[in-house]
Amino acid sequence: MTKAVVLLSGGLDSATCLAWARREGFEGHALTVDYGQRHAIEIARAAEIARALGAASHRVVAIDLSHLAGSALTDPRVEVPKVPTEGIPVTYVPARNALFLALALGWAESLGSQDLVVGVNAVDYSGYPDCRPSFLRAFEAMAREGTKAGAEGRACRVHAPLVDLKKSEILRRAIAWGVPVDRTVSCYDPAPDGTACESCDACRLRAAALAEVEIPRP
Amino acid sequence: MTKAVVLLSGGLDSATCLAWARREGFEGHALTVDYGQRHAIEIARAAEIARALGAASHRVVAIDLSHLAGSALTDPRVEVPKVPTEGIPVTYVPARNALFLALALGWAESLGSQDLVVGVNAVDYSGYPDCRPSFLRAFEAMAREGTKAGAEGRACRVHAPLVDLKKSEILRRAIAWGVPVDRTVSCYDPAPDGTACESCDACRLRAAALAEVEIPRP
Repeated sequence: MTKAVVLLSGGLDSATCLAWARREGFEGHALTVDYGQRHAIEIARAAEIARALGAASHRVVAIDLSHLAGSALTDPRVEVPKVPTEGIPVTYVPARNALFLALALGWAESLGSQDLVVGVNAVDYSGYPDCRPSFLRAFEAMAREGTKAGAEGRACRVHAPLVDLKKSEILRRAIAWGVPVDRTVSCYDPAPDGTACESCDACRLRAAALAEVEIPRP
Repeated sequence: MTKAVVLLSGGLDSATCLAWARREGFEGHALTVDYGQRHAIEIARAAEIARALGAASHRVVAIDLSHLAGSALTDPRVEVPKVPTEGIPVTYVPARNALFLALALGWAESLGSQDLVVGVNAVDYSGYPDCRPSFLRAFEAMAREGTKAGAEGRACRVHAPLVDLKKSEILRRAIAWGVPVDRTVSCYDPAPDGTACESCDACRLRAAALAEVEIPRP
């Protein structure tokens, strides 16, 4: 069974990616990065979701990104916006996806895999440069040049199965593929118990999708 | 003054890069990654070297890479080789330079810089895929696609001033540029007090350079 490393934040998108990997026949190894994010409740939920979706393994890697000043997700002095903003959002964390994918790449290589799965989305997150397909292709090229696997001719593939989907389309797939949607966390700025703020960008996107898609009652 | 983030391990090469950055007119910000390496004495020495070479700031970022099985530098079950080996060495850490450069890139971006300096060397370390110029160019391309700075047209530059130098040439520059050579640590497998093993690849390279270049007595 081909192994894949799935970046699993504990949000709806990454959980859907883990379910996607299983459907595609990958043995999914989930990687969660604990970077002191405001929404740390995600990390506990990630472990729960990894179990629920049958991940072959789940690692939480801790890294201190407090030196990355200026992002609302890592710098406590910067507020999470509660109204829509223009351009690249203040919730952008400098080079975050390059860093997370590099972590995934190293783990994949040590597992003998070159398949990475990431829940980036270029529709709702078009303001984030590191959510664009052109970035993912450039990352693959970099991985080919900078790893033992690449030097030996095994190419890295970054799968982004949600990249072109609207949030409602992601939600429909999540439901169909057995993702425990109610356990996923999308909010950028939740209360310590995980209660969503209901007003940040991520909450608004999720609410709009939930209004459009009916979640079946258990 | 243009800022640059210099990856500073505490070894001779990275210390020489910090001195290079100062000579080139950069305000050097030193970044040391504490990844549970065997040669953790490097980290204390990195702080000392950053001070000695006038770094504008120095950050140590801790990250747990114990999930990267199979490398002699991160996996305690793998011995550091004490005789020369062929091919990609077992001291290769999967995707290490991609990860370290991604960390440097994020910090640089939050400092308003796009200049990274790294002490990779394609002469003595030709077995490491992530020490080759082609990898550095691919990293720059990835950074252009995956950062806010890149999206705004500011290109990332990865400076590798030692990439084509022999160890003895690096040592000559280190001496000329005021690097406290005797405080740098090269050994992959030192004793807890920092005493070098004198037999790993890194020790052998350093000894050969020291035999060739006279270090002036203070």
